[in-house]
Amino acid sequence: MARVVVDAMGGDAGLSAVIEGVARLTLEENDIQILLVGDVDEITDALGNQAHDPSKLQVAHSGPAVGMGDSPRAALEACPDASILVAMAALAQGDADALVSAGSTGATILAASQHLERLPGIRRAALAAVYPTEQRHGPKDDPFALILDVGATLTATAEDLVSFAIMGSAYANIISDNPNPHVALLSNGTEASKGTEAIKAAHQILLKHPSIQFTGNVEGLDIPRGTVDVVVCEGFLGNVVLKMLEGVGEVVTDLAKDAYARKFLWRLGLTMLSQGLRQLRVMTDWKQYGGAPLLGFDKVVIKAHGRSNPRAIRNAIKVAAKAVDRDLAGQIKRGLQDIL
Amino acid sequence: MARVVVDAMGGDAGLSAVIEGVARLTLEENDIQILLVGDVDEITDALGNQAHDPSKLQVAHSGPAVGMGDSPRAALEACPDASILVAMAALAQGDADALVSAGSTGATILAASQHLERLPGIRRAALAAVYPTEQRHGPKDDPFALILDVGATLTATAEDLVSFAIMGSAYANIISDNPNPHVALLSNGTEASKGTEAIKAAHQILLKHPSIQFTGNVEGLDIPRGTVDVVVCEGFLGNVVLKMLEGVGEVVTDLAKDAYARKFLWRLGLTMLSQGLRQLRVMTDWKQYGGAPLLGFDKVVIKAHGRSNPRAIRNAIKVAAKAVDRDLAGQIKRGLQDIL
Repeated sequence: MARVVVDAMGGDAGLSAVIEGVARLTLEENDIQILLVGDVDEITDALGNQAHDPSKLQVAHSGPAVGMGDSPRAALEACPDASILVAMAALAQGDADALVSAGSTGATILAASQHLERLPGIRRAALAAVYPTEQRHGPKDDPFALILDVGATLTATAEDLVSFAIMGSAYANIISDNPNPHVALLSNGTEASKGTEAIKAAHQILLKHPSIQFTGNVEGLDIPRGTVDVVVCEGFLGNVVLKMLEGVGEVVTDLAKDAYARKFLWRLGLTMLSQGLRQLRVMTDWKQYGGAPLLGFDKVVIKAHGRSNPRAIRNAIKVAAKAVDRDLAGQIKRGLQDIL
Repeated sequence: MARVVVDAMGGDAGLSAVIEGVARLTLEENDIQILLVGDVDEITDALGNQAHDPSKLQVAHSGPAVGMGDSPRAALEACPDASILVAMAALAQGDADALVSAGSTGATILAASQHLERLPGIRRAALAAVYPTEQRHGPKDDPFALILDVGATLTATAEDLVSFAIMGSAYANIISDNPNPHVALLSNGTEASKGTEAIKAAHQILLKHPSIQFTGNVEGLDIPRGTVDVVVCEGFLGNVVLKMLEGVGEVVTDLAKDAYARKFLWRLGLTMLSQGLRQLRVMTDWKQYGGAPLLGFDKVVIKAHGRSNPRAIRNAIKVAAKAVDRDLAGQIKRGLQDIL
């Protein structure tokens, strides 16, 4: 049984989207226990509108969420009962095994670093993200790959990159049931001699790692293709890559809308393509993939997208529970031991 | 009158594509003089098959091109009469004002750094690339923006980034007739506090620059949107970004092909969309944009894409001549003086 604490206050769609996702999940067949953290009155009101199984739910009171535009550090200092702090404290003291928040990414990372223990050998946590790819991955033919770090760090040493590779491999193993995920370093060329000093040194360490399926360097081209299951890079680069992918998705949608508005024949063409477009949309629908794990701590932390709808919240909680059940932290620990 | 030296041996499409592009250009109304560098017999044969104006053409003999897979340094050392070296020497000694090559990028950059003078104040050259965007740019509504550095450097100091901004602004001015291009630093957030130390320091210097229209930081999202005319970043990052854009283009093409093959209704839909797809293809056709300038030297150097067809070669030579006529080096020099 996994116990998941959910920050009910975070997320652009407001408390009702979070509660709706949680309520739905309690009615499904699973053994997930949920601790909702937020304004008790608001939570009670929202639950009143939703069918749910109260035996799977607890509520703990907190103040508001950290605003998306606020400085995380200043906001957490100014508001000690911010929902993410109360939720993270509950996780740290063992009231839950995993945490899910759709609130501010910076505040989630900062609260985790204040309250949680880092795994032995991990100098810095990493935020990982799943993104859609052309090639399929793992035994379930998942149409997505994992990339990390996408923003918990700025720059990374060789040792940081190696620990990102180990953590990414463990996470891909869990979400895609992939016993042997292919892992690569993102660089400016496939040769071992390409990249920054940190990348070149990490390359040599990973070549010798006994339990990581390291395939060498990949280039920018390989990201949308999805040549490997796990792409490893420093946080600054991962942030740019991830936002570019989001931007490309937006531009394609805009162009399709524009074509639809413009001419009768184009409109007809798009209609006839609709099943194909629907497949494409499913493939690029981030919401179904259950959020971004913050890796490197002794507890599971999943950052759901700020724009999460109820289904995305539900999926994020399911992913969190799966990571607990499969012992994500233990898998990462074993991978780290194999370097020594 | 601009005199352009063309490396006839470089390029995946072989000498005939280069000669065909050059031959066509000599028949158009312009005052461009061309010096073709390569195997004289091969060039003479190829010119025999093409209508051309011999009064606009000269030929100088050289050895072969540096192979795309070769190490540029080793290849240039082993082959002192490599076409790019002979062409670059002709440029350096004043036999031409600009150089165009579709050969190895690394060999072009290395040959330039061996033979050409860097502009005063430029510590390192940068390779710039035009790429398709959703938003339009400049008075001609160009559907592309400029990004640099995309691979002449790996990392960049604040001063390097500032000089990239100045060089990119001068180049955008010339190719898009844009008197006041909007320039931004690529970072992991729009705030001045975001990014590496080099980016933050460059941000402060550019804010005070009197003749650069600096709009601050942009994020990954802004690259496909095309929010600004010139995106500035270190070469490692620019390389990943550019290859990602190329990869996304390939994936979209693959998906369209796949849809075409699959179902009758989809096929019909694509056919009806054909005019829209043609517009999209024109928009994403790198070949029409005339290659990537290598900026920072006292002479104009344009690296045409390895897969250049005759039209791409012709456009690259036209862009090179335009950069000469508009005094690219002088514009960059004036921008650099404005920092002091």
